[in-house]
Amino acid sequence: MPDRGLYNRGDYGHAIRASGVTSMSASLRAPDAVLGVHSSFAERYLSVRRTTERLCAPLTAEDQLVQSTPEASPTKWHQAHTTWFFETFVLKPHAPGYRAFDERFTYLFNSYYKQLGEHPNRLTRSYLSRPSLEAVNRYRAYVDEHMMCCIESEPATELAALVEIGLNHEQQHQELILADAKHVLWSNPLRPAYREQRVPSAASDSCPLRWIACSGGLNRVGHEARGFAYDNETPAHNVFLYPCEIASRLVTNAEYMRFVEDGGYRRPELWLSDGWDTVVANRWDSPLYWERRGAEWWTMTMEGMRPVDPHAPVCHVSYYEADAYTRWAGARLPTEFEWEVAARGLLVAGNFLDSDSLEPRPASGAADLSQMYGDVWEWTASPYSAYPGFTPAAGALGEYNGKFMCNQIVLRGGSCATPASHIRATYRNFFPPSARWQFMGIRMAK
Amino acid sequence: MPDRGLYNRGDYGHAIRASGVTSMSASLRAPDAVLGVHSSFAERYLSVRRTTERLCAPLTAEDQLVQSTPEASPTKWHQAHTTWFFETFVLKPHAPGYRAFDERFTYLFNSYYKQLGEHPNRLTRSYLSRPSLEAVNRYRAYVDEHMMCCIESEPATELAALVEIGLNHEQQHQELILADAKHVLWSNPLRPAYREQRVPSAASDSCPLRWIACSGGLNRVGHEARGFAYDNETPAHNVFLYPCEIASRLVTNAEYMRFVEDGGYRRPELWLSDGWDTVVANRWDSPLYWERRGAEWWTMTMEGMRPVDPHAPVCHVSYYEADAYTRWAGARLPTEFEWEVAARGLLVAGNFLDSDSLEPRPASGAADLSQMYGDVWEWTASPYSAYPGFTPAAGALGEYNGKFMCNQIVLRGGSCATPASHIRATYRNFFPPSARWQFMGIRMAK
Amino acid sequence: MPDRGLYNRGDYGHAIRASGVTSMSASLRAPDAVLGVHSSFAERYLSVRRTTERLCAPLTAEDQLVQSTPEASPTKWHQAHTTWFFETFVLKPHAPGYRAFDERFTYLFNSYYKQLGEHPNRLTRSYLSRPSLEAVNRYRAYVDEHMMCCIESEPATELAALVEIGLNHEQQHQELILADAKHVLWSNPLRPAYREQRVPSAASDSCPLRWIACSGGLNRVGHEARGFAYDNETPAHNVFLYPCEIASRLVTNAEYMRFVEDGGYRRPELWLSDGWDTVVANRWDSPLYWERRGAEWWTMTMEGMRPVDPHAPVCHVSYYEADAYTRWAGARLPTEFEWEVAARGLLVAGNFLDSDSLEPRPASGAADLSQMYGDVWEWTASPYSAYPGFTPAAGALGEYNGKFMCNQIVLRGGSCATPASHIRATYRNFFPPSARWQFMGIRMAK
Amino acid sequence: MPDRGLYNRGDYGHAIRASGVTSMSASLRAPDAVLGVHSSFAERYLSVRRTTERLCAPLTAEDQLVQSTPEASPTKWHQAHTTWFFETFVLKPHAPGYRAFDERFTYLFNSYYKQLGEHPNRLTRSYLSRPSLEAVNRYRAYVDEHMMCCIESEPATELAALVEIGLNHEQQHQELILADAKHVLWSNPLRPAYREQRVPSAASDSCPLRWIACSGGLNRVGHEARGFAYDNETPAHNVFLYPCEIASRLVTNAEYMRFVEDGGYRRPELWLSDGWDTVVANRWDSPLYWERRGAEWWTMTMEGMRPVDPHAPVCHVSYYEADAYTRWAGARLPTEFEWEVAARGLLVAGNFLDSDSLEPRPASGAADLSQMYGDVWEWTASPYSAYPGFTPAAGALGEYNGKFMCNQIVLRGGSCATPASHIRATYRNFFPPSARWQFMGIRMAK
Repeated sequence: MPDRGLYNRGDYGHAIRASGVTSMSASLRAPDAVLGVHSSFAERYLSVRRTTERLCAPLTAEDQLVQSTPEASPTKWHQAHTTWFFETFVLKPHAPGYRAFDERFTYLFNSYYKQLGEHPNRLTRSYLSRPSLEAVNRYRAYVDEHMMCCIESEPATELAALVEIGLNHEQQHQELILADAKHVLWSNPLRPAYREQRVPSAASDSCPLRWIACSGGLNRVGHEARGFAYDNETPAHNVFLYPCEIASRLVTNAEYMRFVEDGGYRRPELWLSDGWDTVVANRWDSPLYWERRGAEWWTMTMEGMRPVDPHAPVCHVSYYEADAYTRWAGARLPTEFEWEVAARGLLVAGNFLDSDSLEPRPASGAADLSQMYGDVWEWTASPYSAYPGFTPAAGALGEYNGKFMCNQIVLRGGSCATPASHIRATYRNFFPPSARWQFMGIRMAK
Repeated sequence: MPDRGLYNRGDYGHAIRASGVTSMSASLRAPDAVLGVHSSFAERYLSVRRTTERLCAPLTAEDQLVQSTPEASPTKWHQAHTTWFFETFVLKPHAPGYRAFDERFTYLFNSYYKQLGEHPNRLTRSYLSRPSLEAVNRYRAYVDEHMMCCIESEPATELAALVEIGLNHEQQHQELILADAKHVLWSNPLRPAYREQRVPSAASDSCPLRWIACSGGLNRVGHEARGFAYDNETPAHNVFLYPCEIASRLVTNAEYMRFVEDGGYRRPELWLSDGWDTVVANRWDSPLYWERRGAEWWTMTMEGMRPVDPHAPVCHVSYYEADAYTRWAGARLPTEFEWEVAARGLLVAGNFLDSDSLEPRPASGAADLSQMYGDVWEWTASPYSAYPGFTPAAGALGEYNGKFMCNQIVLRGGSCATPASHIRATYRNFFPPSARWQFMGIRMAK
Repeated sequence: MPDRGLYNRGDYGHAIRASGVTSMSASLRAPDAVLGVHSSFAERYLSVRRTTERLCAPLTAEDQLVQSTPEASPTKWHQAHTTWFFETFVLKPHAPGYRAFDERFTYLFNSYYKQLGEHPNRLTRSYLSRPSLEAVNRYRAYVDEHMMCCIESEPATELAALVEIGLNHEQQHQELILADAKHVLWSNPLRPAYREQRVPSAASDSCPLRWIACSGGLNRVGHEARGFAYDNETPAHNVFLYPCEIASRLVTNAEYMRFVEDGGYRRPELWLSDGWDTVVANRWDSPLYWERRGAEWWTMTMEGMRPVDPHAPVCHVSYYEADAYTRWAGARLPTEFEWEVAARGLLVAGNFLDSDSLEPRPASGAADLSQMYGDVWEWTASPYSAYPGFTPAAGALGEYNGKFMCNQIVLRGGSCATPASHIRATYRNFFPPSARWQFMGIRMAK
Repeated sequence: MPDRGLYNRGDYGHAIRASGVTSMSASLRAPDAVLGVHSSFAERYLSVRRTTERLCAPLTAEDQLVQSTPEASPTKWHQAHTTWFFETFVLKPHAPGYRAFDERFTYLFNSYYKQLGEHPNRLTRSYLSRPSLEAVNRYRAYVDEHMMCCIESEPATELAALVEIGLNHEQQHQELILADAKHVLWSNPLRPAYREQRVPSAASDSCPLRWIACSGGLNRVGHEARGFAYDNETPAHNVFLYPCEIASRLVTNAEYMRFVEDGGYRRPELWLSDGWDTVVANRWDSPLYWERRGAEWWTMTMEGMRPVDPHAPVCHVSYYEADAYTRWAGARLPTEFEWEVAARGLLVAGNFLDSDSLEPRPASGAADLSQMYGDVWEWTASPYSAYPGFTPAAGALGEYNGKFMCNQIVLRGGSCATPASHIRATYRNFFPPSARWQFMGIRMAK
């Protein structure tokens, strides 16, 4: 039976090279053709680590300590935890003679790996005023230094694989850093901006929604190419699909406003039972961050409160809202496999973190299927489950994905906060159906 | 467009007859061959209604008012609500000149149909000391009388369909009545029995577990035969399955005890993340109703507290426990389609409500796959989702199944509390993964 | 050291006789002059027990099982618990050869006496469908029979004291039975009445509020006369009071409506901090049971929903509301000692349970201080604390009063649900400041 | 009747001078004899403000943002809120032409004054990463500068009174800053110390507990001297007291350990009902901060984790624990008036903030009544209520004390975190009976 560990690889060097095939932005990484594999790998390591630090830079030490919702974590914790990951899974087991930066961090920055022992309650991450941000920065530098020694020497396949997963792990946290920071800044009554307004948002055009036919039949889904993938994308397997139609672009704010104005949040018949209970309990009446100012809707952006752009994709909606919207619109959400098969032929390109927009942008509309990648994660109709034959990795890393396969929904395609090099057609993100603080939106199917 | 309403039918008379093909016990219903269709239908109506009353008979008016857990409902409420169902969906819209028994019951006994207006909070069902049980009995008789008029006159197809769904609805509540009553009696420190001990449980034998190979490939699943089925079983569709092995019988209490004694409830690595949180929060250390008396485990049965029978199937375990057990045992749960394909060829026979055992019994073991029907509902690995092309029924009845397709898990096969005439290979039961007060157990796959 | 046990006595025979001096209604008990002490005592026992049963009679077995708020208890539980009290504190320790009716009841009907061992969680009292009401009635008869043997033989002083406390305990539960039943019936959407409307409420008159001057100085308060009193009324002691004015009657519904209409429930500056939090959390906008029907306020009575009588005293308000009302009205609540000194000279007469009105009635207005006794319990400004030198009784009965001396407020004067023989000037009732389901109202001071 | 507003005064200059009579440490303030009244007042203002800043200095900007329990507030918030108090009650209404530092702070740093409009939920104070600590420091400097202008010009009596209350308010927050910081540092698994260990705690001696007789009779309590006092200390009034005995010193850790070891936390009969519920719900088994290391108890101090000093007073116990301890010891807590009368003749001297010990110290034992002032706040038996004739101040400042007069208990005498100039015999502190994170302990009476 084929390998279905944490990722599929033959020659690991190829795997790394292969992962460069996608549309990763040149500004983040030089093409493999130019650099040797090893230096490329080290450079990639540093590039990812520097990106994290660049994303945190606009936030003060105080900002980086706030936990404004139980779902989110303080920025400083993200910075420390991603470093802990390399220390725990790479340096301690594989770097001979490595001495921990601070043994107490083993406990302090463990997120949820039960096999590594106790960890703090996640709701108390904002209590960690110590170590200071400055100490966490030193921790990062210390670990980077030791990591570079590991990487620069000929990295064994297994080691390279662990580093690769550490880099992907850190990229996931980059996205969380942005989404969490947005919530932190919005929770402050002063509503500070993450950065100054860059481009006065050009008056964007409406791009008509078309339905793109997708043929059915037996399809192969899941990861089997070279290159890194998480264990939850494997094994690749066959699924039988029925023909369907997928919307050519994401649902826009203007479209979603019509749902709101049609009483969408007051009509239980449009909602899943749990969804309606959530609406009532939390008094939801619009997407997260929307607030009415006179006749206008405003919303929080990384550049502060701004009027809602009618042509941009609706963002920060839960699965419950996505589901209710599509029911109201006479459509439905695509399954994760309908999405994957439709996306498979497309170039992995779009409004990612690398474009530095930090907000979803209106569809340009030329393509049959636009915005499949980037802008917002797309809720699918699929609960997050194991693929046939799924086996989690051995040891603590087996807790990475598998133990969350319950009460969560799959999202696909990445967002404006996702690094381009992190995403692929088979990538499965997952969140509970009530979550909406990530960059999440809606594509319809029928 | 193919028919995929609340059930599939051509000639309704055939549908009714067809539904009699299964292993329904003669004690409950005379064969169709003997009775004409109409009288059969009326008789079936009365048979189901009388069964409900027979199940409630051992319970006093006081017993029938208790709600001992938020998941359960008082027995009296079940009796009234099932009657309300016929009044609301059959008599009021279809019986010319029908006058409601009491207009206030429209509100009082609505469970969750938002399209019918407000309904009481489900946690307050135990406040309804009025109407009295005696009044509810009169309500039942009044509705029965009017229903018989409807049925005895030539029933239109649509009407017959509504009656059929009402009968199936009532059968579901029969099962709930038993599971809820068990919880009520157990919650009382006196631990009264539902009935006296009948048969001194014969020393049963252990029947070795074998693994039955199931071939894969493209399979058709879902309901397309004649006979009643719920909307959530449709449309029938193709799925691609991989070969697997399914356990020849259910997991026994003896086997589950070994899991308990091996520290199963203290090892987070065996559990889903949400499952572990549930274990910790509720301090679970064994199945519901188990309690240790010295060296022995005892459990609640409909005949009072009894020593756990090592050879009987483990019962009253949640999905979380089923999942953790299979992980500990080096196996997994079957998907709902693996189960359905394996069950399809079997006779729908087993330890159902009709056998009047009211507890799961040890496997007899002759068959390749025993206990697929009856004994305990079998947790599958499948989250409860819509089939491709699923459309809920129009109107309030559309709330019956569809709106619960989130955060629930599919169970298959029926239990010792399920009427034999109610179950079939395509039947999809569903409960949240933490539920365990129903008659639920475990079959392994790998 | 002066006697300050559960009650003050010299010769206990006198104590019992003395307790007949107050205004107890002839319909409930024959005068002491006619009956000998022993027969009087037995008769008093039976009278109290029969009164409980008379109060429960309009309620069905089902009504008697409902617990519609955590503060209340099912009627059947009240009936069993008061019986348990006699069995536990009188029969078991003092009746030679007494055999318990059912040993399991020791646990089942213990309310909160920790020294007697475990007891069920009070929120699960509605689970006790067994023992049935009929069995509880047999329990009552069985205990009564044995109690009569105890009482009819020459009762020792100590025994008589225990019986006396048991009778007072049962009288307290009589009041709870009525208040709890009102809540049960109101919680049912059918809003059944406890009894049929008796007297069409005569158009009552408004009686102007006057301020009655009370002189200050050193005063003796607390119980030191003969007759029964609870331990919390002792020891009698001196307090220094300042002159004050006390309102001649209770606050009426009409007066309270003006507070409501003046935005009383929307103005935080009128409320205690905890009070305001309670208003906001529970969305209170009027007294318990009030509901607006068009321009009118209606309220629940023992005879069903009725328009609020403007001249009757406002009832079912919490301490928070009483406090906020008086602040709005430019006054305050009296302290418990101001109340006691003012009440001391008055005849213990008023609208008690014995008048069978079951609702507070408008003041007749002749007296300087009317309604001091009966109608509604009057919230005082005094937190419930121990008197100087207070010592609780030895053993489990010491838990009766003392352990609640925290976070509760003293109420004085009895209500329309209080037996006349149960109340006196020194009597201290107490409830948490948020409680309002008892018959509670407001008298102002300044 | 004499003035009984927020404080009693004739000539305000005298009031200020009078307040200097107490044992305030020379290091904090020059004697009045040396400075003129005005310069003294300005100097006192600056002294209090600088003390706050000195107390915050060991804490980083990150430390100052943490809210580790709902009862506590972030240090930075304390610094801003005390400044807001001067800006809101002094500068805005009384400094002509004053321009707010930032108008948004009016909302941001309002704690609970409803009459000043909305304020943030207190549980979200840790979200305020902005304004930064540095900005809050500028806010403090800005307000100080304007305050000095106000104060240095001849201050009107009313203005001086407002400044005085602002200074007392800030002194209260100084104590909160220390208690909250201790909790913050303890909540961090690294257990950082607030400061380095100064003096190796000298082996202290046990000082035997004696009972000091206090005569009863009519006594005058409450504030009527010159000098500042809060409204809740007035009006002075007569109370009648009974003779009692008061312990010569506080309960020590060694004594409290015997209670713990005697099963104090497992014996419900020793506890108030609410107290026992609190013990069970929170699984308390010792004072806050105690933790067992082998055979020893350790506890958190401002200098990190240290072995519990057996001779030092027990600290960080709730009213429930204080009450249970005294019951176990066969004694009781003194009432607030017993305490006040006993303390009245003593010099206001003790282990205050000014001694810079920051922990309670063993009694030296010479005096009849030692430790009445300082070391730990002493729980009394008295619920927090209004004195006869109490009238809160007009306007928003009326919310300072009065609205908390419910569900709280009075504490007396100040602690090692109380500025010496802040305390007096009539001072009434108050906390809910479950609070224990302040420096709180036990003195017995009987």
